[in-house]
Amino acid sequence: MLSSGQVKHVSSLRAKKFREKSGRFIAEGEKLVDSLISAHFNIDSIYASPSWVRDNSLLLKNQGIPVFETLPGEMERISNLSTPSPVLAVVVVPETPLFDYDLYFRDFPSGNCLCLALDNIRDPGNLGTILRIADWFGITTVFCSEQTVELYNPKVVQATMGSIARVKAIYCDLVKTLSLLSQTIPVYGAFLEGENLFEQDLPPSAVILIGNESHGISPELEPLITRKLVIPSSGPSEPGKAESLNASVATAILCAEFRRSSYRQ
Amino acid sequence: MLSSGQVKHVSSLRAKKFREKSGRFIAEGEKLVDSLISAHFNIDSIYASPSWVRDNSLLLKNQGIPVFETLPGEMERISNLSTPSPVLAVVVVPETPLFDYDLYFRDFPSGNCLCLALDNIRDPGNLGTILRIADWFGITTVFCSEQTVELYNPKVVQATMGSIARVKAIYCDLVKTLSLLSQTIPVYGAFLEGENLFEQDLPPSAVILIGNESHGISPELEPLITRKLVIPSSGPSEPGKAESLNASVATAILCAEFRRSSYRQ
Repeated sequence: MLSSGQVKHVSSLRAKKFREKSGRFIAEGEKLVDSLISAHFNIDSIYASPSWVRDNSLLLKNQGIPVFETLPGEMERISNLSTPSPVLAVVVVPETPLFDYDLYFRDFPSGNCLCLALDNIRDPGNLGTILRIADWFGITTVFCSEQTVELYNPKVVQATMGSIARVKAIYCDLVKTLSLLSQTIPVYGAFLEGENLFEQDLPPSAVILIGNESHGISPELEPLITRKLVIPSSGPSEPGKAESLNASVATAILCAEFRRSSYRQ
Repeated sequence: MLSSGQVKHVSSLRAKKFREKSGRFIAEGEKLVDSLISAHFNIDSIYASPSWVRDNSLLLKNQGIPVFETLPGEMERISNLSTPSPVLAVVVVPETPLFDYDLYFRDFPSGNCLCLALDNIRDPGNLGTILRIADWFGITTVFCSEQTVELYNPKVVQATMGSIARVKAIYCDLVKTLSLLSQTIPVYGAFLEGENLFEQDLPPSAVILIGNESHGISPELEPLITRKLVIPSSGPSEPGKAESLNASVATAILCAEFRRSSYRQ
């Protein structure tokens, strides 16, 4: 049975303030917890149903993670989900040393390197979904502007479906980052007007820059863009009528097109 | 000032039971309400800030829609959003006569017809996003299995960003529908194993079938599929590691590829 202190502590981690104070975040769901343990994240504690604990004895073996079995109805008290899963992990936020631009970009690969840059993505579901898309397409690095929603927001963590354990999200100054990156590889920006995505020969190495959900790409980043692309909105006889695509949907289409291009090369 | 009866009525429409009983649904946000009025949906009433009412006098002119101006803080009492917008509309659910398969498919176009079929999409955000994607790519018809999440769920309506006013979602028996459709145009299903999407010559007319978020495409629909496609999960040197893509993300990539193919033909 969980103590009221435990319930209070876990629930508090829904708030950024308490995540920052304690250096912990929460992750729920079998796939997600499995991914984090497998990727050697430092797990503070696990709250789980007795059947999950029984079924995962191999995963937990020699990990030394404190495991608390919950009684029926207790997961509802600590879960952030409308339908609680059988397992919730409290995870230590990995230490990230101050991002060293010179060091990082000195050795930055120029060949076969596709990466994403996110300019103030604010919706947690979008950020999580984008990390999942990156993971699917083997994109290992996602540069995030400092105003991008916090990586350890529970809705971000959930939407990654475990990809948070495999894709590196680097929060940094995007002006500085794109200035350095564009010396080696081209920067493609997604706009509502630009060159038709479907008519491009896309290179295997590039940065794909995705703008904010409402305001698009910031004016200060525009000069750093090599090419502006548009995803054509169209039907066979007339253009589509939606005004825009969701940011994660646009990311998916762009990533797929870049991968398709190199696939056929 | 809103009466407590109004607050109670509007709030009740968050529940399916009350939407069905009253034949009304709610739509929030300037773009969405504008789309619904422009598409001649029957609007029961509008709740809006005085400035929205002032700015939209042209849109409202001669519409005969009862408009209730809200006081500061009142939108929060009726809104379903964490950040309420300046306008909320109560909309009459359009009457949909029983779907007549024979009549509908007798005149179904075979040329230049791309449509979607959704097999038990359960997440409201996914359904709304899929309708928005369809709208972007000029796809006007989306067949939904009867177990697909309800179209008028507020989260579906919001996620469409207005596309609900332009894309026709037809709830029907998908076995029957795909049996009839497949006599005229090919049915492509999205799977985790199948032919590589990036190596296909895709036709301008097709049905793209998308499966449920957890269980994929139902076994009873599989025999009706002309071709199984997979979105390749890959990086330059090794396959991607995500286990799957979100249903709406997969839909976006497939729709883009079909449109790109016909774009180049």
